[in-house]
Amino acid sequence: MKELKIQLLTREAFSPFGEVMELESAEHFTINNGTTERYHKLATADVEGEDAKVIMSVFEGQSFSAPIEIKMMERHPLGSQSFMPLDRRPYVVVVAENGSDNKPMEPQAFLVKANQGVNYFKNSWHHPLISLEDVSQFLVVDRDGGGDNLEEVYFDTPYVIDSLLVAK
Amino acid sequence: MKELKIQLLTREAFSPFGEVMELESAEHFTINNGTTERYHKLATADVEGEDAKVIMSVFEGQSFSAPIEIKMMERHPLGSQSFMPLDRRPYVVVVAENGSDNKPMEPQAFLVKANQGVNYFKNSWHHPLISLEDVSQFLVVDRDGGGDNLEEVYFDTPYVIDSLLVAK
Repeated sequence: MKELKIQLLTREAFSPFGEVMELESAEHFTINNGTTERYHKLATADVEGEDAKVIMSVFEGQSFSAPIEIKMMERHPLGSQSFMPLDRRPYVVVVAENGSDNKPMEPQAFLVKANQGVNYFKNSWHHPLISLEDVSQFLVVDRDGGGDNLEEVYFDTPYVIDSLLVAK
Repeated sequence: MKELKIQLLTREAFSPFGEVMELESAEHFTINNGTTERYHKLATADVEGEDAKVIMSVFEGQSFSAPIEIKMMERHPLGSQSFMPLDRRPYVVVVAENGSDNKPMEPQAFLVKANQGVNYFKNSWHHPLISLEDVSQFLVVDRDGGGDNLEEVYFDTPYVIDSLLVAK
């Protein structure tokens, strides 16, 4: 197995793969007669195809601990998919750019803070949910509708995250 | 002021106004090779009009305590709007059916549990966010795009929630 180092998630580092939903540096303004601050448009849903709808679901993910094997990746050709933690616990996202063979290139792993969400772009390779510390729930905004919205690829040689300490 | 009693939120009681996002009685199935449970399609975003997009924002609401005055209501003619608590604290929603004068009828107030979200239907009258206990954040899924998506009506005689104890 190939070792995969973990990085800290930033908007810039994640920009080829999707959007980071966090309050830091976000556009915000006061609404509701001064009682609410709106951190606006942290992400945009993007769906297409037959009867495409944007839906809200809750994912409850089992907890992982290192070493974490990354055997496969998936992507959703017809829609973006966002995850926002409901239990304020950190988690891991693993993403990859698309290669000329239409398979994921070298993956990148990010440690996501408990107050950050992610929105994978439509057709962006990613690993399924990797919760940390305990069983955790996430609000997921993704696509419902006709057509095949899931593609999976298994690596010939899997990767492994040996440590959740962020690489320097 | 007229007194407004508070009710416990259920899917059935809320059904004229929107959807309740909760795991109880929700369709669910296992995905991600057994590591994730998907509580599927708890709500659907519904947007229309010029350049309509579904967007994700975070609302940070100040905390209210009884007595809570309900002076006005608002609605969004071009899109649904959902709220999911990120801090696992209860909150209050106040909704009303539309009258023949296109103003809100007698409002209804619901105490929402910390693990419940709500999705107001497009054009459904509701009061702005009423957080309880402390400043609280919510993931909001609503509409971005052109056109006027906000209508507000002030009551001639305001309502007041004197107690957060659910009415028998």
